[in-house]
Amino acid sequence: DSGAFQQVRFTLNNSLRPAEVAHLLEQSPPKEREILWNLIHTDNEGKVLQYLADDIQADILSKMDTDRVLAITESLDTDDVADVLQQLPERVTRELLKIMDQQNRERLEVVLAYPEDTAGGLMNTDTVTIRPDITVETVLRYIRRHNEIPEMTDSLFVVSRRKESYIGILPLTKLLVSDPNITVREIMNTDIKPIPAEMPDDEVASLFAKHDLVSAPVVNKKGKLLGRITIDDVVDVIREDADHSMMSMAGLDDDEDTFAPLMKTTRRRAVWLGINLITALTASAVIGIFQNTIDKVVALAVLMPIVASMGGIAGSQTLTLMIRGQALGHVERSNAGWLLNRELLVGGLNGVLWALVVSAVSIYWFEDTTIGLVIGLAIIINLIAGALAGTVLPLALKSWGIDPALAGSVLLTTITDVVGFFAFLGLATYFYG
Amino acid sequence: DSGAFQQVRFTLNNSLRPAEVAHLLEQSPPKEREILWNLIHTDNEGKVLQYLADDIQADILSKMDTDRVLAITESLDTDDVADVLQQLPERVTRELLKIMDQQNRERLEVVLAYPEDTAGGLMNTDTVTIRPDITVETVLRYIRRHNEIPEMTDSLFVVSRRKESYIGILPLTKLLVSDPNITVREIMNTDIKPIPAEMPDDEVASLFAKHDLVSAPVVNKKGKLLGRITIDDVVDVIREDADHSMMSMAGLDDDEDTFAPLMKTTRRRAVWLGINLITALTASAVIGIFQNTIDKVVALAVLMPIVASMGGIAGSQTLTLMIRGQALGHVERSNAGWLLNRELLVGGLNGVLWALVVSAVSIYWFEDTTIGLVIGLAIIINLIAGALAGTVLPLALKSWGIDPALAGSVLLTTITDVVGFFAFLGLATYFYG
Repeated sequence: DSGAFQQVRFTLNNSLRPAEVAHLLEQSPPKEREILWNLIHTDNEGKVLQYLADDIQADILSKMDTDRVLAITESLDTDDVADVLQQLPERVTRELLKIMDQQNRERLEVVLAYPEDTAGGLMNTDTVTIRPDITVETVLRYIRRHNEIPEMTDSLFVVSRRKESYIGILPLTKLLVSDPNITVREIMNTDIKPIPAEMPDDEVASLFAKHDLVSAPVVNKKGKLLGRITIDDVVDVIREDADHSMMSMAGLDDDEDTFAPLMKTTRRRAVWLGINLITALTASAVIGIFQNTIDKVVALAVLMPIVASMGGIAGSQTLTLMIRGQALGHVERSNAGWLLNRELLVGGLNGVLWALVVSAVSIYWFEDTTIGLVIGLAIIINLIAGALAGTVLPLALKSWGIDPALAGSVLLTTITDVVGFFAFLGLATYFYG
Repeated sequence: DSGAFQQVRFTLNNSLRPAEVAHLLEQSPPKEREILWNLIHTDNEGKVLQYLADDIQADILSKMDTDRVLAITESLDTDDVADVLQQLPERVTRELLKIMDQQNRERLEVVLAYPEDTAGGLMNTDTVTIRPDITVETVLRYIRRHNEIPEMTDSLFVVSRRKESYIGILPLTKLLVSDPNITVREIMNTDIKPIPAEMPDDEVASLFAKHDLVSAPVVNKKGKLLGRITIDDVVDVIREDADHSMMSMAGLDDDEDTFAPLMKTTRRRAVWLGINLITALTASAVIGIFQNTIDKVVALAVLMPIVASMGGIAGSQTLTLMIRGQALGHVERSNAGWLLNRELLVGGLNGVLWALVVSAVSIYWFEDTTIGLVIGLAIIINLIAGALAGTVLPLALKSWGIDPALAGSVLLTTITDVVGFFAFLGLATYFYG
């Protein structure tokens, strides 16, 4: 047994990379996770920690004392330390900053001055800077004096002598093919605009995609170079943003720990079930209005879920497409009209198609033409309602500052349930009344 | 009017980058999209095309003749040409390869030999290679002879003199800080294993994430260097994979064009509605069995959607978590037992909680204790069924080679509808019968 532990300890600390250890922790239930974590050497803890999801990071940090956290963060890049600190209570962070050495503190304070989800929060302060008036040969000599250059350095940043203002970048690939006697100013690239530290992280991600960047400079309002953002951190942003929509639509956190403990999970899920119960009760209230009609024609009770369900399915297709379109920046006020128009037509056409099918089935099943007419009309109405709600809800929610992925699906179901039951039972009351 | 066109044409070709023009096209309805595309200069068409979603690429290419396609692809990287060719019918591709110059054809054939979703399909052939036995100084002189090095080159690849076998990489950052008299062999990095051309693209993506790579070498089965994969192409893979789950769960294509034309959209959506209609009809058939009971107690018809809906919501939370967990590689056979156990407990606990709430509401509403008992029990049963289905379905579907994101939600709803209605109406028949 102890031999097996030794072997796991060796694998964790010597054979696997920090990202792989983090992955192993993420795919372990709580108890195993704690055992594994305790087998990691203190020197490696920081490296592993930075690859863990925020949820799990916070969990592990909450069980540590301040000295241990300080020791762990010493080996990390500034942006990663800032990430870790953001998982800690304000009080602990302040304490940590106090006992840190001055240089590290100053660097950290620059990053911590910006929210986690902005360029400033994403950036790292390990830039290699040069002046515009020196020659390529001098740059090469200057660099050779370093023992190593920070990882993911694909460009040097050119800054002014006085105020460290950002002027341009010099890609290493350019540096390597240039005449040694030429000055930096002549070959630097000034096309790439520096990223303002306040820029939201999703805009940073689309800038990186647009320009195929590996790293990019970050500046403050005065144009002073503060640091750089590297593609590895941008990839994390892209991954989280992409997960966000799907997880939110099911009322889950985008950073949800797959192996969150029982009571935490139960509590979070209970809230979502409670919200959805309101939708279900609203639908029941609508059905309640038509109890007399159902009492007369019990077939209505048998068929009514079909109407609600078809509207809900059609509506969530529209909703999902809109939410993805919003996330990709495809959907805007200018083209929303075209989309609404198409979705209403799609809803209408599919409404007619499936109304005919369901009508035929119902007439055959209950040997009653009236019920076929009623359900057909109700399906057409509800598919159009689903298309309308699926298009308009995300636009409206976004303009009110509410996340469409989170609130959209509940509201949509409420609408298609209410409209579906109301149309079907209302029409039935009219025709059978 | 013509002046406005001139201005748009100028913006498209001179002010915007190809990725920005592609984004503009993606956010335009079909007619506007065609007009904009026709304003793009032939020289820029290829660059824009490679940034477009596959769906839209295929659409544009289908309207071009072979010569035009050839002209467009001439300015592109090998991997991008391969991507474009994969959107074309086999016949056109063969014709294109025939009229291409030999060097381009040979390069392309290497990439086309591998499916689009493998390392071979993702790779580019523009590697800069060096021999292990030359000095740093020689490397620097060799590089300076180039006019430019390919974009995203962060490392040179070291290959053997004889068979072009991959030996290791030399990062530019390392090259720049090394002693000019040292040989490549002494400073090259042999830790990074080359990527086999057959590796699926999602594994490539997780390798890049694990090692924070910017570019990586691709080799064939004999270890010969074929090309390299760069992070920009990996980011596209990550984005598509992430979209895949959400879009599939709504029966949409992960590459769906937000502005797909009316009839194409209607046809695709109709299929999904048809599949879901089977679910709805199955649920109706279950209700149909209990018509007599509903005829006696009409309140059952009013309340029954609540049972089905709560089970469906709880089940899709579990399902979404499982599908995300599978995509992230968190869920495996070894930890599935723990997850099933937790989900069943969460379902049971939330079942009891919400059963009490709904029971109380029902008893108050219909002044009938029996109905409160019946709906409470049914909710507990259905939430546990939802948890069971939400956990087991994705595991089973995956092991049968069926995409859980696509089939999971329909099957789950069928199960929670059938179990919900059966439990509720069955218990009612027992207690009221």
